Amino acid sequence: MRSFRIVVAAHGELADAFVSAAQLICGVIHETQAVGLRPDDSPESYADRLAAAVAGGAPVLILTDLVGGTPHNVALTLARRMPAATVISGVNLAVLVEAATSTDALDPATVERLVDLGRGALGDASSLAASRTP
Amino acid sequence: MRSFRIVVAAHGELADAFVSAAQLICGVIHETQAVGLRPDDSPESYADRLAAAVAGGAPVLILTDLVGGTPHNVALTLARRMPAATVISGVNLAVLVEAATSTDALDPATVERLVDLGRGALGDASSLAASRTP
Repeated sequence: MRSFRIVVAAHGELADAFVSAAQLICGVIHETQAVGLRPDDSPESYADRLAAAVAGGAPVLILTDLVGGTPHNVALTLARRMPAATVISGVNLAVLVEAATSTDALDPATVERLVDLGRGALGDASSLAASRTP
Repeated sequence: MRSFRIVVAAHGELADAFVSAAQLICGVIHETQAVGLRPDDSPESYADRLAAAVAGGAPVLILTDLVGGTPHNVALTLARRMPAATVISGVNLAVLVEAATSTDALDPATVERLVDLGRGALGDASSLAASRTP
């Protein structure tokens, strides 16, 4: 069982779509919320909704879509006030699936492993496939 | 103006959501299609739809969500038969936004730059922020 909660913070429908896509792959994902930035959101209204999702005592991993975007900026501001919150930016599906199925503690080693895994999953698949073709 | 087309291949609503989220950031993105794997898709029916989106003479960059998933596997199979197609796996929003606004040719240097940029955008933002705090 996972020992931390997950909150996906992203533009528009992307947060919900990440969670739905991950659930297509690994089944129902518990203790996970998606908070999408709506077109009519102000940074303040978004911060209110994200804070509500993030609040609580358990460690929480916030996965954001883009450094510099409102979801990321708001997440980082919240996390600075919450020692139990960690923010990984630039989420891809590999990071979310791995985090969702993790049984590790949300410690620096786990965060580093998730980041390495996500970066490793992002690559030039064409040349990789070509180099493997005999 | 961009010299290549973009096709996002991903599970469920994730493909559409990536394109919508990118459009929230950089406005209308032309010459870009999202092909989401539907719950009722077979690999064959998905391949037909992805092939239709990818078909054409111009260079095309296929951005897939997850190595080993059906969208990625189908994209790679298509790309092996199309010298003008390149597949980058593990897409995150940074890669899509950068690709969408690129004016470069779709050559190995551009692909490497997109991969590097995507990997650089994926990181432990909490510790980065903490290390920057005086």
